[in-house]
Amino acid sequence: MSGELESLEQVLQGHIPGQEIKEVWRILYGKEPGILDLPDVAVNAASQGQFELKGFILEAATEQLRRPRIVRVGLIQNKIQTATTEPVVEQIYALHKRIATMVEAASTCGVNIVCFQEAWTMPFAFCTREKLPWTEFAESAENGITTKFCQELARKYNMVIISPILERDESHGDVLWNTAVVISNTGAVLGKSRKNHIPRIGDFNESSYYMEGNTGHKVFQTAFGKIAVNICYGRHHPLNWFMYSMNGAEIIFNPSATVGELSESLWPIEARNAAIANHCFTCAINRVGTEHFENEFTSGDGKKAHHDFGHFYGSSYVSAPDGSRTPGLSRVNDGLLVVELDLNLCRQTSDKWNFKMTGRYEMYAEELARVTKADFQPDIVRE
Amino acid sequence: MSGELESLEQVLQGHIPGQEIKEVWRILYGKEPGILDLPDVAVNAASQGQFELKGFILEAATEQLRRPRIVRVGLIQNKIQTATTEPVVEQIYALHKRIATMVEAASTCGVNIVCFQEAWTMPFAFCTREKLPWTEFAESAENGITTKFCQELARKYNMVIISPILERDESHGDVLWNTAVVISNTGAVLGKSRKNHIPRIGDFNESSYYMEGNTGHKVFQTAFGKIAVNICYGRHHPLNWFMYSMNGAEIIFNPSATVGELSESLWPIEARNAAIANHCFTCAINRVGTEHFENEFTSGDGKKAHHDFGHFYGSSYVSAPDGSRTPGLSRVNDGLLVVELDLNLCRQTSDKWNFKMTGRYEMYAEELARVTKADFQPDIVRE
Repeated sequence: MSGELESLEQVLQGHIPGQEIKEVWRILYGKEPGILDLPDVAVNAASQGQFELKGFILEAATEQLRRPRIVRVGLIQNKIQTATTEPVVEQIYALHKRIATMVEAASTCGVNIVCFQEAWTMPFAFCTREKLPWTEFAESAENGITTKFCQELARKYNMVIISPILERDESHGDVLWNTAVVISNTGAVLGKSRKNHIPRIGDFNESSYYMEGNTGHKVFQTAFGKIAVNICYGRHHPLNWFMYSMNGAEIIFNPSATVGELSESLWPIEARNAAIANHCFTCAINRVGTEHFENEFTSGDGKKAHHDFGHFYGSSYVSAPDGSRTPGLSRVNDGLLVVELDLNLCRQTSDKWNFKMTGRYEMYAEELARVTKADFQPDIVRE
Repeated sequence: MSGELESLEQVLQGHIPGQEIKEVWRILYGKEPGILDLPDVAVNAASQGQFELKGFILEAATEQLRRPRIVRVGLIQNKIQTATTEPVVEQIYALHKRIATMVEAASTCGVNIVCFQEAWTMPFAFCTREKLPWTEFAESAENGITTKFCQELARKYNMVIISPILERDESHGDVLWNTAVVISNTGAVLGKSRKNHIPRIGDFNESSYYMEGNTGHKVFQTAFGKIAVNICYGRHHPLNWFMYSMNGAEIIFNPSATVGELSESLWPIEARNAAIANHCFTCAINRVGTEHFENEFTSGDGKKAHHDFGHFYGSSYVSAPDGSRTPGLSRVNDGLLVVELDLNLCRQTSDKWNFKMTGRYEMYAEELARVTKADFQPDIVRE
């Protein structure tokens, strides 16, 4: 990992002098977020636990009729904790243990809603195309050991937990799904949201394991605001973000697993564009580190067979509806990003920019319906 | 203008050392574009004419069955050339003269398709809410003096010209539109594309002058590829880019007029996201400079009446479907950006990422149709 840049923002701040960095920051990242004071107990826990801890504030204007609706979100990115050759149960428990430590730190930071990375209980082994042992990591969304583990944390810390796992659906022929389980701060399973768009790119055709989700664009009304989960590859599909937003989401989480060469220049663009286009907050979470697999595999890129498929670059961040964003977490280390949001900023930005009022959705509903027809003819003007 | 940063990229390259700037560039801007050699005659013309000239190359892989489909696009950003109090005709002719110089330089750079900024024949006076003299800048798209001027240039230089003007539509009750006229390299008017989404924000309610366009999402088959024009505020609407793309656009031009405080942090995000999401090239063009108006006006922001509404920050750039982009033109000077594209990159990227294959448009057509109903109920899960 020694060759990896640790953080883009660190480089910018380290080299660009004071009078220019402010303008550079404004153009690149919008209005600068405030710094959130974090308690010593959390800072010490991060230092002891060897994970990065950062806190920011994204503010809204004061209104007369609504109080500020302050929510603290926690984004957790982490490496796998054991070799991928260890017994499945030990791999899972090691991750549970890691997450328990980080969620405890989040609770001391006052986090209300925490979201983990995609398929967080396992290595992202779908590149291997092997079924065993990877499908053994799948669990019931309603009563698997990971959901039970999260329910305990949720109750203990009064925290909403978004737990993206590989789901085994026994009620529908024992199939697998890529699913985020949403657990209320009461400990109840509020529901689940399945990955809507499945990649066939690079090392992956994830449809070897699970198909396109069938849970639509559900939004979860929690004690801390209306939230939705757009898993990984759904990030590339503007209509996916849009439908979560039209169902009322104020914060859309995007738990992901994506590597440098493929997607890193897309990473700062897509979730942020979604926050802007939909007048909501978006939280982009990526795993971190490089995962090695015992059996080699190929990637359809003309290169030799290999044992890993690249560096997960972390860089988790939060975007606000006004186009501003926080710096990202590290590209190489585990991390917890705590961001205090005022949800009033969603409606304030909507009232300012009016994208949903000027969106002409009836026109697009008609055009989109035409596009889906097999005999659709593009509207092309020729000389 | 002395307080304005001239160029974000200049600051980055000026301060960040060699070993780090490459990684910073990759993360921020994707694969670095090649530098296009420009002829001395163009360099001299730019120097004499006091406009910036930059050239880049965005490459594609070599294929067996298709030759590279190389196109050079030219993006022109410019200040108005006279005081806004000068006679209308003189303002228009001064801009014609300026553009003639810059298009001539573009022709020596081998530009095949050139696009000017939004409402390029006039100051962007819609902030004033006055009708005269501003509506006098409106012209027929088919046979106004500006279209005739562009037809001459098109024939002379064998160049496709996209000319965004304020249109007077005599055939439909003499109404106004915000319209891009597309002129073939043969000199024929190929057609027109009207602004689909009209802002009501900040200094503007542009619907005081013209309403939402009725030309849909036409794509123009030119000798140099299939192109479309998404005017200004349509940039914020992902569905707008999407429909141009579904009609076959390989390059979508976005002639704009937008100022710093309002939108600058959105500027690098939206057109680039559109290139990524739709597997096409996008060309974002913004005017430059500050325009002063004789009569003061207010902006609904609690501030005093004033005579200008801020700094147009230029920064025109081109994005490629693979997520890479060129640096932007200056934030303060007139400029011509020449970019050589290989259109084969569109299909290559589409075949790699498959967003249109994984897009599930039938699902969205249904959902969008539901959203437009007055009795639509968001899908919200409650405990």
